[in-house]
Order: sequence, then structure tokens, then C-alpha cells
Amino acid sequence: MNDTGDYLDQMRRTAPLVHNITNYVAMNIMANVLLATGAAPAMVHAREEVGEFAGLAQALSINIGTFDPFWAEAMEIAAGVMIKADKPWILDPVGVGATSYRRQVCGRLLAMRPTIIRGNASEVLALAGLQAGGRGPEATDSVAAAEAAARDLAQGTGAVVAVSGPVDYITDGRTSRRVANGDPMMTRVTALGCSLNGVIAAFSVGQPVLQATVAAMAYYGLAGEQAAATARGPGAFAAAFLDRLYHITPADLTQSAKVTPA
Amino acid sequence: MNDTGDYLDQMRRTAPLVHNITNYVAMNIMANVLLATGAAPAMVHAREEVGEFAGLAQALSINIGTFDPFWAEAMEIAAGVMIKADKPWILDPVGVGATSYRRQVCGRLLAMRPTIIRGNASEVLALAGLQAGGRGPEATDSVAAAEAAARDLAQGTGAVVAVSGPVDYITDGRTSRRVANGDPMMTRVTALGCSLNGVIAAFSVGQPVLQATVAAMAYYGLAGEQAAATARGPGAFAAAFLDRLYHITPADLTQSAKVTPA
Amino acid sequence: MNDTGDYLDQMRRTAPLVHNITNYVAMNIMANVLLATGAAPAMVHAREEVGEFAGLAQALSINIGTFDPFWAEAMEIAAGVMIKADKPWILDPVGVGATSYRRQVCGRLLAMRPTIIRGNASEVLALAGLQAGGRGPEATDSVAAAEAAARDLAQGTGAVVAVSGPVDYITDGRTSRRVANGDPMMTRVTALGCSLNGVIAAFSVGQPVLQATVAAMAYYGLAGEQAAATARGPGAFAAAFLDRLYHITPADLTQSAKVTPA
Repeated sequence: MNDTGDYLDQMRRTAPLVHNITNYVAMNIMANVLLATGAAPAMVHAREEVGEFAGLAQALSINIGTFDPFWAEAMEIAAGVMIKADKPWILDPVGVGATSYRRQVCGRLLAMRPTIIRGNASEVLALAGLQAGGRGPEATDSVAAAEAAARDLAQGTGAVVAVSGPVDYITDGRTSRRVANGDPMMTRVTALGCSLNGVIAAFSVGQPVLQATVAAMAYYGLAGEQAAATARGPGAFAAAFLDRLYHITPADLTQSAKVTPA
Repeated sequence: MNDTGDYLDQMRRTAPLVHNITNYVAMNIMANVLLATGAAPAMVHAREEVGEFAGLAQALSINIGTFDPFWAEAMEIAAGVMIKADKPWILDPVGVGATSYRRQVCGRLLAMRPTIIRGNASEVLALAGLQAGGRGPEATDSVAAAEAAARDLAQGTGAVVAVSGPVDYITDGRTSRRVANGDPMMTRVTALGCSLNGVIAAFSVGQPVLQATVAAMAYYGLAGEQAAATARGPGAFAAAFLDRLYHITPADLTQSAKVTPA
Repeated sequence: MNDTGDYLDQMRRTAPLVHNITNYVAMNIMANVLLATGAAPAMVHAREEVGEFAGLAQALSINIGTFDPFWAEAMEIAAGVMIKADKPWILDPVGVGATSYRRQVCGRLLAMRPTIIRGNASEVLALAGLQAGGRGPEATDSVAAAEAAARDLAQGTGAVVAVSGPVDYITDGRTSRRVANGDPMMTRVTALGCSLNGVIAAFSVGQPVLQATVAAMAYYGLAGEQAAATARGPGAFAAAFLDRLYHITPADLTQSAKVTPA
């Protein structure tokens, strides 16, 4: 597909079932984001069923925000199912730089070679530092440093790596894109980054991953721009954001996506 | 009581404490739904206290959405307390058809004979298939097939069985009702079905269960209709839905309930 | 600082990282409340990392709403880290009177001497009853009885004790204040009390605790008053409340805080 809006259109036609193993803060808004977008969300994590359920889903999102060893085990089981079936899965290494336990579990998940990795600049830098021979996180998490780390990470793992920020950066290690859609108010509503993982996963089902990720992030940022145009604060913004996700059409997205080569 | 609105009136006068053992996605919106409705919600699940707490509550709602063995144990303990005290409890067998673990735990809960069972057509069909000699889920989950399964399930367990859908179907195995209140936007906000369980539980305290369930579902659907009349998308709808739950009066409900024999 | 608004101003300048170990119902709204207020929320609880993470935070809030033994252990580990580093932590003893397990765990946390304790009148009475030689909860939880219990509790533990109600009461056992800001609609949205804990924790970083707690509660109540002036129900109110937290300035707070000696 040549056109950003086509990815939205295709996703809505198939309404993929996205299996999410995410944090407690994000679960409700993430499910609402996926429903507003047009996908089918499900949250399942018990070791007794997580692998069987992953077999039913078209895509998987993993987020370590409030995890513990039970949840980490579920993440590895479900990711293993997706890998065997060649279905896309995304890793969000929330706060990976903060504790050694996060680095340890992310190291294991990274070794499973996620289809997509999405984080902020600091997380991508920290994650790149976990690779064999990788650099440690830089003292200053500049965009330039994160971009180099993202390319390293993509080349080392085979993942598409997406760095969220005022301008997003998405790379497969060779080809890179920038997405300039978005609004600062998106950082004042919790778990919108977490929820984006599910949208990227949904867009990636059966599609070229780099382009699908770019389209998902443009769509998401555009909803943020449109919501910010009318909302007076973060409470009104959150509701308006869901409404815009629901109403943006493929034609809207094609017209307003701010995607450039990088 | 002969009048749908009387059940709302009676529930608000007693403001029953509803104990909910539900999924992580639903917890916040479910508590807000119960507060807006006029009941008192509580979420408690630790094995160390769940039985003692159930003893304080007037009703119990159980939902297996994001359960695991610890939660399943809590559900069985709390249900046992309600049964001994002859207090109503409701089971929502979320996605029971999806995994063998769900079928196994729902089979155990079903054997405890819930006061009320609520699910969508597929869930009711899957649950009916768990009964000794029951049929497996049909390939096509038609309303007609779900209605027969609901009656089977009600007769086999003694529960009032409610099938949520464009038109809801409620039966105790002999007497059946249809409730036509509702709006499709209710399916675009996560966990509104889960939250309804608590409302049904609250309405059922000290009341004839079939009629109370019918009244709760008419009330809930009416709030959805009214919210959809003004909301432009699922974010605005969710807020408006809570506002309508809060403002609908017993007289409004009696006037606008769409209940018919089935 | 002499001025209520100065505490808001100072908190926003430092944007402290507040570590929250709270209940599942509260997590999302609590994170949104802290973001709207201007602080940085994080939710972390796994025993494998909770102590290390507490070391990175400026303040800690603990709420036992939906806890279990794993969570109770995390609370004790994190509180221990704050105590060693002389950083503020707040305890919300949700429903402490309801079960013996709650009384047992709260007794252990109380013995660690929280910086701040916040609850409603019944909770403060129940908690005061846990102290050696303390009185049991009174049959009628009057404001007067709760105020005496709050002073007892403050003197026995060294904590600032805050009693939430139509008029809040805050005491360190010697000096006491009343805060009259607020609106009854705040009780119709779940977890606003839980979320307040994080705001108090954020305000208390590096500040005199009694005054910071008073300022946080005046700020919070003022947002409730302003939101109630325009919202027609609890759904609209919740969004408007976040918007007001975001927009209230230090000058607004100084002008509209209703604080009196007690």
C-alpha cells in the first residue's frame, strides 16, 4: 500500500484481535483506544491460558509497566506463540533504565526479537545498551543519540524501532521515517503511549511493519492534534482524543499525515 | 413490585454494598457506574479477607475477564459466603469459549449455582455446553440458539440467565423477557457489560431476581440511549453515560423501559 | 512559606516523582490526577524492584484498597526505603475496619510511622483503635470523635493525620486546621480520595508537612468546587475536575483556599 490512510482502512476492515499484556494503569484506556480505533482488544495473562489465548489473537502487545515475575512469564509464553505463528508482537520497555529487574526481563524479551519496539528516547537508549557490545545510556538523552541507538537496536534485533517524542522516529535500521503529528497534551494523559502499542500492533497485522508503524503513529498523533484543538484541559482532551480516533477517516489521515524520510 | 422504575427507586433507597471480583480493565468504570447508579461498590479479592468481606456485602459480582488461579480461588470463597447467607451473586463468564482454563473454572462456578448469569450470545452458548449433557457452542451464535441455551442453562442451574445483545433476553427457564433499550455505542466503550453485572447485583438485593434483572438492564440501556443522543464519539459517550445513570429517575425508567414478554 | 498557593507553585517547579502503591480501581485516575496537577506519577510494586525504585522517587503513597500479601510486602519494603532516606510517605488505610487482615497489615505499617495518614472519619477511628491502648472505633463516627482520634493518632505515631469529609481536618497532634473546600460530587467519582494521597505526597516533598497537606487538600477541594460549577453529572465532573487541577494557578489557590485554625 502506498498511502497512509490505506493502513487505517485495512485495519478497520479486518478489526484484528489484539492480545495485550500491559500495565494496570493502561488497561482501561488501552481497551478504549483500541475500540475507538476499530480493533478488538483482549487482556489475558494467566500462565494457565495465556499461550492458548495468544494463539487466537492476530497480534500481541507487551508492556512491562507494572509487571512482576508472573507477568514476565506470561509475556515470554505469549511472545513465543506469536513467533512460532509469525504474527507481529510489540515490546514497550517502560522505564527499562530504572531498575536492574527491568533490564533483566527486557534483556530476555529482546533476545526473542520483537517485531516492533516502541519507547521514548531514554528507554530506547537504555534498551540499546542491553545489547551485547551495546553502549550504555547516554547522560543526555538527545534525539540524535536516540536515533543512532534506535538504528543499532533495529539492526541488532531485526525489529522496527519507534522512538516517541515531539517528532517520532521510526526505523528498521536501514530505512527511517519521522512523524510530526501530535500534541504536547498527549503527555498529560496517562498511558497514551502504552495504548499506542496496541494500535501499532493492530495496524501491523499482515502489513509491511515499518510502513504500518508509521501510519499508526501518524493516525494517533493526528487524533491528538484534533483533540487539542477543542479541549481545554487533560480531562476534556482524553474524551476528545477517543472521539477523534473514532472519527478520523482514511482520507483524513492521508491528507494530514506528517511523514518525512529521515 | 409491578413497575420497572420501582426497582430503581428501591435500590437507591438501600444503596447496597456490592462486592465485585472483576477484571482489571473494568474496575474503575465499574465503580463509577455503581456510584452513578446509587449503589456502593467495593473491590476485594485477597484470600486472606475475601470471605470476611463478602459477609459484609449485600450482593456479589464475579467476572473472569483477567483472572488467574488466585482470583479464581477468591471467587469460589466469596460465592460460598453468598450462598450460605442466601444473598444474590452474578457470574459473567467472559470469553468462556476461548480457553480450556476458562471452561474449567466456569464449570466449577456454575456448579455452585449462581443467582444470575449474564453474558453475550456466544458466552451463554459456551456455558450451556459445559452442563452435563449440554450441547457444544453452535457454529453460528444466532439469537434463537442463544435463547434456547439460556433456557437450558436456567433450568439446569436455577439461575436467571441474561443474554446481552441488541435486544437483551432474560429468562428463569420458564418466564422470559426481552429488553430493547440500548445503543450500539455501548459496545465501543470497554467494560460496560462487566459494569452492568454490578448494577444487576444491586437491583437484585431483596427483590424477585428475574424482574430486578429486567429492570436493571432496561435502566442501563436507557442510559445508553440517552447518552448516544448527545455524544459525538465513545469518549464523550462514556462521560454522558455516567451522567445519565445518575440522572434517570424511577419515573423516567417506568416511562421509557422497553420490556416485552418473550 | 506563608501562602497556600506557594506550595502549589513549588510543587510544580520541582515536579516530584511520586511512587504509588495503590489499588487497581485508582491507578488510572490517580496517574491522571498527578499529571494534571504537575507531578510525575509511577506505579511499581514487584518485590524484585520496588525498593530500588523507591530510591529514585521523591515521595511514596500507599493505599491498601485491593491489596494482598504480595502487595503488603511491597508496601513495607518501599516504606522502609523512604524512612531511611527521610522522604515523605503517606498511608491511606482503606476500609481498615472491615476485615482483620486489613487491621493486621495497617498495624504493621502504622508501626513504621508514616509521614502522613489520610482517611475518612471511620478509617481514622479504626486506625486509632489499633494503637496500643487505643480506643476501638466508636459506634457513631462523628466528626468530633474522629478529630480526637486523629490527634491521638498523630501524637502516637508522629504523623500528620488528615480526615477527609465535608470539611477536612488536618492535625499533627498539636496544631490543627480545617479545610472547607470541596463538593459532594467528589464522592460520586471513584478513587478521588485515593488520588488525593499522591497530591499530598507531591506537595510534601521538602516542605513542612502539615502546611503542605493543608495546601494540597485546599487545592484539591477547590478543583472540585470549580468542576461542580459546570458539570451536570459524575462523568462530566471527572473530566472537568482534571481540567481544573490543570488550570488552577497558585494565585487562584491563595485567593480561594478556605483554611481555618481548629
